[in-house]
Amino acid sequence: MIDLERHGDIFTLTMNDGENRWNTTFVRAFADALDTVEASDGPAALVTTAASDKFFSNGLDLEWRKSEGPHRGGDRTVFGEEFMALMGRLITFPMPTICAINGHAFGAGFMAALCHDVRIMRSDRGFICANEIRLGMIIPPPELALFRHKIPMNAFFETVQLARRWTGPDALAAGIVQQVASRETLLETAVERATELAPLGANRKVYGAQKESMYGENAAINNSHGPAYMLRHSAQYRH
Amino acid sequence: MIDLERHGDIFTLTMNDGENRWNTTFVRAFADALDTVEASDGPAALVTTAASDKFFSNGLDLEWRKSEGPHRGGDRTVFGEEFMALMGRLITFPMPTICAINGHAFGAGFMAALCHDVRIMRSDRGFICANEIRLGMIIPPPELALFRHKIPMNAFFETVQLARRWTGPDALAAGIVQQVASRETLLETAVERATELAPLGANRKVYGAQKESMYGENAAINNSHGPAYMLRHSAQYRH
Amino acid sequence: MIDLERHGDIFTLTMNDGENRWNTTFVRAFADALDTVEASDGPAALVTTAASDKFFSNGLDLEWRKSEGPHRGGDRTVFGEEFMALMGRLITFPMPTICAINGHAFGAGFMAALCHDVRIMRSDRGFICANEIRLGMIIPPPELALFRHKIPMNAFFETVQLARRWTGPDALAAGIVQQVASRETLLETAVERATELAPLGANRKVYGAQKESMYGENAAINNSHGPAYMLRHSAQYRH
Repeated sequence: MIDLERHGDIFTLTMNDGENRWNTTFVRAFADALDTVEASDGPAALVTTAASDKFFSNGLDLEWRKSEGPHRGGDRTVFGEEFMALMGRLITFPMPTICAINGHAFGAGFMAALCHDVRIMRSDRGFICANEIRLGMIIPPPELALFRHKIPMNAFFETVQLARRWTGPDALAAGIVQQVASRETLLETAVERATELAPLGANRKVYGAQKESMYGENAAINNSHGPAYMLRHSAQYRH
Repeated sequence: MIDLERHGDIFTLTMNDGENRWNTTFVRAFADALDTVEASDGPAALVTTAASDKFFSNGLDLEWRKSEGPHRGGDRTVFGEEFMALMGRLITFPMPTICAINGHAFGAGFMAALCHDVRIMRSDRGFICANEIRLGMIIPPPELALFRHKIPMNAFFETVQLARRWTGPDALAAGIVQQVASRETLLETAVERATELAPLGANRKVYGAQKESMYGENAAINNSHGPAYMLRHSAQYRH
Repeated sequence: MIDLERHGDIFTLTMNDGENRWNTTFVRAFADALDTVEASDGPAALVTTAASDKFFSNGLDLEWRKSEGPHRGGDRTVFGEEFMALMGRLITFPMPTICAINGHAFGAGFMAALCHDVRIMRSDRGFICANEIRLGMIIPPPELALFRHKIPMNAFFETVQLARRWTGPDALAAGIVQQVASRETLLETAVERATELAPLGANRKVYGAQKESMYGENAAINNSHGPAYMLRHSAQYRH
């Protein structure tokens, strides 16, 4: 379901469950892989990708959510909070994280991609899309805040309100992904970028704390006072 | 003053009062047209444009504001709040809204354009500009917040502090408009885009609530806690 | 250390202390120059640049900070707050400010550049970079807020978390600088831009208040309510 390999400083996590739809079992397998990665020492970076030729992750496991009784997807009642908490862990993961988007990334799959530090997307096919509004759903506030803090304002609006399906080249121009690559070179491009960034992973305390200060409780960038006020009263804002 | 036509699912609101300067009478005529649009059912989208060859809307009706006594512009004392409230209604309008900027959009005209979901601008002439600072005025907080939430940070600063006059191509590159078109094809381009988006207007409750969650009271994207905190405590943030 | 010249309406402040590393003496010399500029009347704009062929400003004076006893760098205990306060003054300076980035701008040097209204960067060499995380340091909240409010979200993340070294052309594409120019034409390009903007400096009260409303205490753009709420209740948000 989730494959994890290590070569030198680079961990490669491969989602390998068909369309990689999110259910509780999938969330926990993903979290277990993160435990292994986080238990390492020294320079390190994480590359996340998927085994499918067509899908990075196609969103929630809707068939499971609508079904009843025992299911390989696991406990339905805890899913929402466990999935969201996993995304909260990923967005502050204490080493560089690179997402190689090898195919469609919809809804929860798009969220997972955005929680990485760097996104490299296949150039020839595949869309990233938050399609909630087309399904008659409102995006929950934590997901909305995630989109809001990761992409420029104009791309944010088109993404959440208009459910735009972004191709790789369009996502690059909009600032949603940082690079595009062919299907053949996607993974090696991601590993190269991970190798460049792995030294930053050596100091996990600092690397994680920097993300926490951007995205965590009382995040500095969300204060009700602007930067001029904060610069003038910097003693109030010591870590 | 305000013309409203319906063809299939698409409403076209045409501002038809010369330079389309905003006074209380104009605000109320615009609001009446929105009432008609909102009273419809089913898939729908709104296209807003202007009849002039030169102006989309040239800003406030300054001649009226400086004059005294009876005037076709109407009650001067209620204007500020009624205009701002109309913009608040437009930015959360419960169906897709497309603005075809056929000429200059200054000050209040720029605000009206920004309150739409999609902006398509004439490529060959016309500027959009918030010229308040050149007139010795500070932009009021609600207008500032509007600019702040619709365009990227660098474009926001150039717009409000430097009163940059954006051409169509420059506005496109800066993320202020989403498309440009020639004068001849502008309206049909807007109607095509409206037709694509009209299905989203069928579920007005969801479409409006999504905008409200971005721009309304206690808007999720403005919380003092960052997305990682919210993702970790998602149960606190249910709608 | 800091040279200041005036030609017509344009003040040119040249940092002339080698790598232009920030210590208390440098901060105070910079502040003294700003006092002179601010004491002027009428249309005005400030151009800031450096004398070196290689450096705009290479960051904090680390040699001074690590040393003990008397030093030309001055009092070490007051540096942090005085430097931050100077940046708070610069970001709200009541006339147009143009930064001509003639070489490397690292850490504190990048902060100083960002506190200007317009940045023009040398196209052929030099990096701007916030390299704190590579040095094992977390960016303090006021500096983080500065980055957060001046550049688009995607560029913000790459800057603070990945310590990206931006070239001039890359910084232009990312919205961090507004123009690039060759070494030979950089200063004249900055002076031309300053001359265009100098009329805005004539009304210093308004020009400074506009920046204050974006970046100061209870900055409008940081409110917990979104623009739709504020537009609907505009009477609450009068200056």
